[in-house]
Amino acid sequence: MKNFCSVKDVENVAQLVEEAIALKNSNIGDGKTVGLVFFNSSLRTRLSMQKAAQNLGMNPIVMNMKEGGWSIEFEEGAIMNSNSQEHVKDMARVMSQYCDIIGVRAFADGKSREGDYEEKVLNAFVQYSTVPVISLESATLHPLQSLADLITIKQQGIKKPKIVVTWAPHPRPLAQAVINSFLEWVKKIEAEVVLTHPKGYELKEEFTAKIEVNYNQEEAFKGADFVYCKSWGSYKDYGKHIGDNNDWTVTQEKMNLTNHGKFMHCLPIRRNVVATDEVIDNSLVYQQAANRVLSAQVVLKKLIEKGY
Amino acid sequence: MKNFCSVKDVENVAQLVEEAIALKNSNIGDGKTVGLVFFNSSLRTRLSMQKAAQNLGMNPIVMNMKEGGWSIEFEEGAIMNSNSQEHVKDMARVMSQYCDIIGVRAFADGKSREGDYEEKVLNAFVQYSTVPVISLESATLHPLQSLADLITIKQQGIKKPKIVVTWAPHPRPLAQAVINSFLEWVKKIEAEVVLTHPKGYELKEEFTAKIEVNYNQEEAFKGADFVYCKSWGSYKDYGKHIGDNNDWTVTQEKMNLTNHGKFMHCLPIRRNVVATDEVIDNSLVYQQAANRVLSAQVVLKKLIEKGY
Amino acid sequence: MKNFCSVKDVENVAQLVEEAIALKNSNIGDGKTVGLVFFNSSLRTRLSMQKAAQNLGMNPIVMNMKEGGWSIEFEEGAIMNSNSQEHVKDMARVMSQYCDIIGVRAFADGKSREGDYEEKVLNAFVQYSTVPVISLESATLHPLQSLADLITIKQQGIKKPKIVVTWAPHPRPLAQAVINSFLEWVKKIEAEVVLTHPKGYELKEEFTAKIEVNYNQEEAFKGADFVYCKSWGSYKDYGKHIGDNNDWTVTQEKMNLTNHGKFMHCLPIRRNVVATDEVIDNSLVYQQAANRVLSAQVVLKKLIEKGY
Repeated sequence: MKNFCSVKDVENVAQLVEEAIALKNSNIGDGKTVGLVFFNSSLRTRLSMQKAAQNLGMNPIVMNMKEGGWSIEFEEGAIMNSNSQEHVKDMARVMSQYCDIIGVRAFADGKSREGDYEEKVLNAFVQYSTVPVISLESATLHPLQSLADLITIKQQGIKKPKIVVTWAPHPRPLAQAVINSFLEWVKKIEAEVVLTHPKGYELKEEFTAKIEVNYNQEEAFKGADFVYCKSWGSYKDYGKHIGDNNDWTVTQEKMNLTNHGKFMHCLPIRRNVVATDEVIDNSLVYQQAANRVLSAQVVLKKLIEKGY
Repeated sequence: MKNFCSVKDVENVAQLVEEAIALKNSNIGDGKTVGLVFFNSSLRTRLSMQKAAQNLGMNPIVMNMKEGGWSIEFEEGAIMNSNSQEHVKDMARVMSQYCDIIGVRAFADGKSREGDYEEKVLNAFVQYSTVPVISLESATLHPLQSLADLITIKQQGIKKPKIVVTWAPHPRPLAQAVINSFLEWVKKIEAEVVLTHPKGYELKEEFTAKIEVNYNQEEAFKGADFVYCKSWGSYKDYGKHIGDNNDWTVTQEKMNLTNHGKFMHCLPIRRNVVATDEVIDNSLVYQQAANRVLSAQVVLKKLIEKGY
Repeated sequence: MKNFCSVKDVENVAQLVEEAIALKNSNIGDGKTVGLVFFNSSLRTRLSMQKAAQNLGMNPIVMNMKEGGWSIEFEEGAIMNSNSQEHVKDMARVMSQYCDIIGVRAFADGKSREGDYEEKVLNAFVQYSTVPVISLESATLHPLQSLADLITIKQQGIKKPKIVVTWAPHPRPLAQAVINSFLEWVKKIEAEVVLTHPKGYELKEEFTAKIEVNYNQEEAFKGADFVYCKSWGSYKDYGKHIGDNNDWTVTQEKMNLTNHGKFMHCLPIRRNVVATDEVIDNSLVYQQAANRVLSAQVVLKKLIEKGY
């Protein structure tokens, strides 16, 4: 594994999941440094990466770009006579002098679909770093979360589960990163996957190819072993709030339609909007969060070993 | 000791003070993580907690919520369709997955006395965390400071000292946390305590019960071994600046009325407003600050041991 | 070495450069803490200091004053009844209780030349700290950068090189810290130094005494082994942008006038304003950045040993 920015960086997903679960603390990262660059807010990712790094003996260094960093330029060949103070290519090359691995969180800006799907920020780090790069959630993908999700599903021990992936309401049109990423990863395990969302919320085709879509949420829930819930904004009407659809909130009544299905969500979650308190309080969400450490650990280990 | 949020969490204060002074660096915290959540500014608390954690072999992880965190909801059952992005119950439960101990700084907002004295933020962490919680100063109490203060007093070796607790002027109506907390703690040691402040600055009765109040500052100072100084805003006219009282500044002339009394203050201090340069520069304030490490260490140790 | 705030703190520069290059990781800093106070943005300094500290076994603690700290007062004897919350003398003395070494970044404010050249902030830390102080770039000097620059020059193995120090255009009138400091340091090694800049950009005389100045950039470049490039604002018309001088951008054509000269810059750099992409991409800038770790390491070591 050279970088960890999408499922495409992983040779064998099932094996990575098993290795993550089996991994013990070690000193494999002794004397090594992971630099964690945050262009956006974070709780789980920041904490789980620090914890994982320390479990492996690594030194984590956090850079919150909103507060103590320079203003970064991303355009190739830019004449930098305006506001930006440092080019991403210099930042990436300089960080490569200090860090053995670089993690980058760079969300979608939600204005230009093309700009976001180009992954300009993450790709600049991949291009210019001379060390491996980990996505800490990019504009369109969140592979550390997806790996933790598959670990959580695996831990339930259900053979070929039915996984319903459902849209939910939210006051803002969110990025598609978590949902794109989960769909990419879940295709790699043995499962029956059904996607349900209101019309207008169709995702980019490369992520939904070969996945069954059912526009009727209650029908989709029937017999589900897992309900993977996430809100996202429209891909077609990018960046726009195209409707409230408040009847899509996941409630206990809907969960009762499943096969004792377990509710999953990556957090943070808008309680009583995305799902009700009752659903969240009887769910796998904290186990998913805990598994972010396992997911981070195995990725750091693979990148240190460079042999996967 | 289950949590460390007030003196009520401590079985034997005198013993804790002695143990704090005697404590040596150790590896008792090896492989353990303390998460430090700051909703407000900090210098001493942040640094002394990090230092104390490292002295015990623990990994400290700092979260400054103003910069890199999500916007947090504190209302039980809230329908989160507005600005807040994550509920404190999820934050606390998630942090409990990564941290062995959680520290929280959450100041009073100074608007609603009832709201502040309910300790909504700290109590939410206590309620929802599955690991011990340390107050890094809450709306109404600052126990780590009080413990450091008692350590400092103990180190002077004065038997049954006279401790004068004095109000001082300040451009803003500050919280009562430090003073409430000191009064709670100082009752647990052998001392003569006199409280002095202008009329209108009476504290909540539970903190001043059985403590002598003298509205004449100079009279109160007579014979004092310690002058514990702190400004606070009115409890009665909560959140309001009810008067300048600039004649309450602690000066050398007033200190001369004491029994070679030592000046104490928790810092930060408004120089030449709360007390004059001369008073501060010949005081115990830096020893108090240094003792914040001892105070933090013994609390971390007790919570790791869970056996106090 | 007592502090590290300018070249004047160093007894033997050549020896320090050699020792920096030869230094191995060690546990000399075991159990020790370095507090890093940033009043301004940073990438290289923050990361290289953290890395260097960890290489020596020290615990680095970062304080970003813009986000989580108190508002600091710098005036001696101030009556603090306005906005500032803590006096620098208290901050410095308190940090000395927790830290074995204190690093401070405090840029020029660019408004008052006298104020900036007094180095009020850095000097306050030097005056009031009871532990050694490292400049992480002050209003007028950046010695950690200069030391890394001399390390980089030394690594090229050129005997008595010709070093051209050139001004370059920039949208803002920058501080003179990096250039002042480099001139102070480069005088200590065997080299031919030529300074070139447009008229009006003359530096403070103490830094340029005995250094040849040539107002013709292309003439100055002839035969150069190193081109040390930096933009700075006018010292005479302090804080003012006195002209664009866009023909001073360092281009490949100008570099071709040199003796296969190597381009150097401290970063961050405004690409295609200060120098072109081509020049930067074939330069020593990343090696300079990497050497910031060597520079930080040797300084930490010297201050721990206190014996230089």
